[in-house]
Amino acid sequence: MNDRYENAEKLVVQEVAPRDGLQIEPTWVETADKIALIDSLSTLGFARIEAGSFVSPKAIPALRDGEAVFQQIERHPGVVYVALVPNLKGAERALASRADELNLVMSASQSHNRANMRMSCESSLAAFGDVVRRVKDASGGSQKVSLNGTVATAFGCPFEGAIAEDRVLGIVDIYRKLGLDGITLADTTGMANPRQVARIVSRVLERLPAAALTLHFHNTRGLGLANVLAAYEAGARRFDAALGGLGGCPFAPGASGNICTEDLVNLCAEMGIPTGIDLDQLIVLSRGLPALLGHDVPGQLAKAGRNRDLHAVPDYVLQI
Amino acid sequence: MNDRYENAEKLVVQEVAPRDGLQIEPTWVETADKIALIDSLSTLGFARIEAGSFVSPKAIPALRDGEAVFQQIERHPGVVYVALVPNLKGAERALASRADELNLVMSASQSHNRANMRMSCESSLAAFGDVVRRVKDASGGSQKVSLNGTVATAFGCPFEGAIAEDRVLGIVDIYRKLGLDGITLADTTGMANPRQVARIVSRVLERLPAAALTLHFHNTRGLGLANVLAAYEAGARRFDAALGGLGGCPFAPGASGNICTEDLVNLCAEMGIPTGIDLDQLIVLSRGLPALLGHDVPGQLAKAGRNRDLHAVPDYVLQI
Repeated sequence: MNDRYENAEKLVVQEVAPRDGLQIEPTWVETADKIALIDSLSTLGFARIEAGSFVSPKAIPALRDGEAVFQQIERHPGVVYVALVPNLKGAERALASRADELNLVMSASQSHNRANMRMSCESSLAAFGDVVRRVKDASGGSQKVSLNGTVATAFGCPFEGAIAEDRVLGIVDIYRKLGLDGITLADTTGMANPRQVARIVSRVLERLPAAALTLHFHNTRGLGLANVLAAYEAGARRFDAALGGLGGCPFAPGASGNICTEDLVNLCAEMGIPTGIDLDQLIVLSRGLPALLGHDVPGQLAKAGRNRDLHAVPDYVLQI
Repeated sequence: MNDRYENAEKLVVQEVAPRDGLQIEPTWVETADKIALIDSLSTLGFARIEAGSFVSPKAIPALRDGEAVFQQIERHPGVVYVALVPNLKGAERALASRADELNLVMSASQSHNRANMRMSCESSLAAFGDVVRRVKDASGGSQKVSLNGTVATAFGCPFEGAIAEDRVLGIVDIYRKLGLDGITLADTTGMANPRQVARIVSRVLERLPAAALTLHFHNTRGLGLANVLAAYEAGARRFDAALGGLGGCPFAPGASGNICTEDLVNLCAEMGIPTGIDLDQLIVLSRGLPALLGHDVPGQLAKAGRNRDLHAVPDYVLQI
């Protein structure tokens, strides 16, 4: 048989728990705890960490301390610290806080963008144009800041259902024309399936290199890791994931969150796909989440342990 | 791109909640409730239901009413009702209760077989020989009973770790020499990964037709559905799953259970893989499990709903 995973290329994980994970937590997480979490993550081999967002503190009160977080985290060389930004005002705040990359988010569906960003897709795109110009001005100075554009609800919308693939491809083209450095396709409420993922990723990779594409999957219906493998096999190499599987979408209640970082890294470790991430320390960090947040988290590996964490044979077996 | 799922062949689901799901439930499920569950499942399009086990009532008290269950369920034409059987005594009970198929279970690892079946692999195989002779005698009469052999811990053992693939293949060969009609490879504690699954399934399918092979995955580390797709792509067509994702292994505490039937059927429905199963009614049935068992269950689709179950747009969107 053909082993598709022999000499597998590296899978890059972007940790998003500090942003997509914490944004819907009902309990306030202290700024110092957020900084400690990010500082711990910075030591585990991640190339990219989405560390916060600069949206209206009224819309996302859980992340209202974005400035303090970005200013006080310990910057590790080789780690890109990303900030989610909805508009020019957010971009100004992120730049002032020395974010390495701004992640601009718009939904493929109008209704979800209105619900999530409180504006039309056209207004979002106009705002992104302002941000691009502002960042290019800043980069003319000493600051080198990259820009990523996320297509939310790219695989389905909780209000509208299926999203036409050509709509998604069209937004990818608009993002490219805007001059964005990277593009994320986000399955915001876990509606993607592996067949669809393989098809869309293949089409997008006809337009941009794998290094510029990130896939953002939620595990809402249990398909998150299957979708990762479908995307990886189609050529994608960069994936968002959240420690403990934190996160979710406020417009899809009952739903599980982002794919779980340690579950993903374990999958890769078992299959021989390099990630460069310290899985054992990641598990230790994840096991601290319930105490930090006051509730159980969806990730499974931290509960089950790794394959190599063997169990003791029951006493009666020794007597047989 | 090459769409591997165009005109996909049917994926056969064997529902195992009444056996593998209920066997570790701490709360007693009334015989009438077990029968009602099986009778409901019988109407939803399953070709096979593992309805109970005939092991020592001391070992598995939760399933001590196997006779009553098998005698009182409503037999639907086209549904094969399977009983798990560890030895000749269990086989006699299953035959007397008119099971359509006996599922003989032995672990690939000695330590797990001793823990689970309280005997060595050699003793299990000797007992299987007795069962085969007994069933052939019975089949000489009016009763047509088929035999399936399960290789438990086929992808890893919680006590011993990795299991040599040649050991698994060797047991498959022994099962074939015994004259068993079907063989199940079971990932008893969720240690399998898709790369390993593709490799083992390919090797086993060199020895027996796809219709005789069942894969039994647990979702312990979140890889269950990814493993299903890897096995399907390698040619496997028959899979065990449990309503609500019930089940687990008593020797791997903290672990999640079997792959969840409705999550699997939803994956197939979204990808265009036919299963013949009524997913909407399956979700209704799954949503009754917490009331029956007194606790939440791991399945995700019953909580999140199907992709086509759209959510209402928030009121403020209408005012933008």
